[in-house]
Amino acid sequence: MITLAVDCMGGDHGPRVTLAACRQFLDHHPDARLLLVGLADSLQSFSHDRAAIVPATEVVAMDDPVEVALRKKKDSSMRVAIQQVKDGAASAAVSAGNTGALMAIARYLLKTLDGIDRPAIATQMPNATGGATTVLDLGANVDCSAEHLLQFAVMGSALVSVLQEGGEPTVGLLNIGEEVIKGSEVIKKAGELLRSAANSGDLNFYGNVEGNDIFKGTVDIVVCDGFVGNVALKASEGVASMIIGALKTEFSRHIFTKMAAIVAYPILKALMKRMDYRRYNGAALLGLRGLVFKSHGSADAMAFEQALNRAYDAARNNLLDRVRTRIAHAAPLLAPADAQPQPGVAATAQ
Amino acid sequence: MITLAVDCMGGDHGPRVTLAACRQFLDHHPDARLLLVGLADSLQSFSHDRAAIVPATEVVAMDDPVEVALRKKKDSSMRVAIQQVKDGAASAAVSAGNTGALMAIARYLLKTLDGIDRPAIATQMPNATGGATTVLDLGANVDCSAEHLLQFAVMGSALVSVLQEGGEPTVGLLNIGEEVIKGSEVIKKAGELLRSAANSGDLNFYGNVEGNDIFKGTVDIVVCDGFVGNVALKASEGVASMIIGALKTEFSRHIFTKMAAIVAYPILKALMKRMDYRRYNGAALLGLRGLVFKSHGSADAMAFEQALNRAYDAARNNLLDRVRTRIAHAAPLLAPADAQPQPGVAATAQ
Repeated sequence: MITLAVDCMGGDHGPRVTLAACRQFLDHHPDARLLLVGLADSLQSFSHDRAAIVPATEVVAMDDPVEVALRKKKDSSMRVAIQQVKDGAASAAVSAGNTGALMAIARYLLKTLDGIDRPAIATQMPNATGGATTVLDLGANVDCSAEHLLQFAVMGSALVSVLQEGGEPTVGLLNIGEEVIKGSEVIKKAGELLRSAANSGDLNFYGNVEGNDIFKGTVDIVVCDGFVGNVALKASEGVASMIIGALKTEFSRHIFTKMAAIVAYPILKALMKRMDYRRYNGAALLGLRGLVFKSHGSADAMAFEQALNRAYDAARNNLLDRVRTRIAHAAPLLAPADAQPQPGVAATAQ
Repeated sequence: MITLAVDCMGGDHGPRVTLAACRQFLDHHPDARLLLVGLADSLQSFSHDRAAIVPATEVVAMDDPVEVALRKKKDSSMRVAIQQVKDGAASAAVSAGNTGALMAIARYLLKTLDGIDRPAIATQMPNATGGATTVLDLGANVDCSAEHLLQFAVMGSALVSVLQEGGEPTVGLLNIGEEVIKGSEVIKKAGELLRSAANSGDLNFYGNVEGNDIFKGTVDIVVCDGFVGNVALKASEGVASMIIGALKTEFSRHIFTKMAAIVAYPILKALMKRMDYRRYNGAALLGLRGLVFKSHGSADAMAFEQALNRAYDAARNNLLDRVRTRIAHAAPLLAPADAQPQPGVAATAQ
């Protein structure tokens, strides 16, 4: 039996969406149990023999500053959900709430794994092969060192090898075009570290990749600084929205184009399904001593259920142990990136 | 009469494309003259009363390292074209060649303007308003300081106010989501500098924007580090290609979808036109003591002509003087970003 703790209050829609998703999830997973965390009043209507309500008296708002979420709302549904993981009552927590708050609370309660300086956020983006590319970091960390990028690569490899069939997943380092071959100093050093890690069998390093490779599906995992990852993700969403918007505009222009839209409808529907970000909902917070998954705040029930599925798969396949084992194996390369350099220590940074 | 120097050998297709574009351009611009730079043999077939051939004996290959282009090929078509600008024989140079080489040669021959540490590459991307967003930097500079970002903002404002109708263009600083409000230290400092510049009337600062705002058209100009800009551009191209590819796949799936494609063809054509990156071809190299425009290497004649148009508009509207004036006005804010601070020295450059 896999038990997940669900922050039912998070996201733009709260229990209306999360509870609907929880019911679908329970129907699809007979070996799963859910701890529904939230305001008692909001959850009391829900009843299922594999669900238990865990009351919390506060809710982290989508626009709450991290400090408020962390220090003032100590009985928030988000925090209580993560506490279930810490206490061993649940194998993973899922929330659609405020990302910054979720990361801060998760980090505060669960702590990072040995060898990990900073947790990362990993998400999947659909690619042209019909599969998905896992990208990390997605905004948890700005100003990353080369060692941080290596840690992301190792954690991402553990995640993908758990969630995806096939051999050892390939890792690409996000860099700028071949023409301007320089890259930043951090990226160049990260490339060296990743090559070393490949040589020691810690990961399957493909080499540098560019922004478009995320969507070509050149590699299974793309590693980048959180700032760059966040911009790439949002720019991509922006382009997709623009194209879909333009398609709608062109098809609704006049009577003939509207008729064409009717004819083309099944094709457009298939296209939308292919591009549907909801299918890839559920970002993993990696590097913590416990599993936490983040749903998009605007998720509907179908999307939120995907995040639950992802947490379930990760828990069932012991993602945490796998990350821990891989990190331990790569430890000689994972020097303490945030620590001060010490005499006699070969590789430190920042 | 506006004279442009054209590197006819650059790009994936060379004279076949560039000469065709030059002829179209001359037909459309009766007050323009072209200096066609390249191997004499390759250009001799071209004849026009407003075009002169300027021979060069070497060609910078698309994969030539910057050092080779700069130091070994001193009579390359790229270099001779830029030399025309330096000598005052042409008002602007246009090349579809190797970006790194073009930037290096342009910087070496023309030098940067007073107050500018690093030239930037500015391009336009189509947005959902039907217009375009100018983004800089696009890969010329990695590891930018806050002062560099301010310089980009001032130069971008000059460019857009020359190429686009309307009032003072708005500038957004590319940052990560509101939820994770931190941003990097450099970005936070850049935000302060941009606010100061807005207060002193040097630019119209909108505030922070995110990756998707590039395509929403939230602001006229988006300013970012060259690494981030390059990734955002390429990721966007990747998504657009993926969606177009998926549309083609879905429409060609079987006989019914192929029939639907015929019906939908005019709509899809209108969509492609809207999204057509060729319409926005022609990136400006800003911050130099001369005008240089870069065409996409894969440009066809229509796209290369767009780059010529852009250079023509910039030259006709005295972009160089406008950038110079604006930079001079903003000089008190444009501290020497690459230099060590020196007592009593207000503004120097690399």
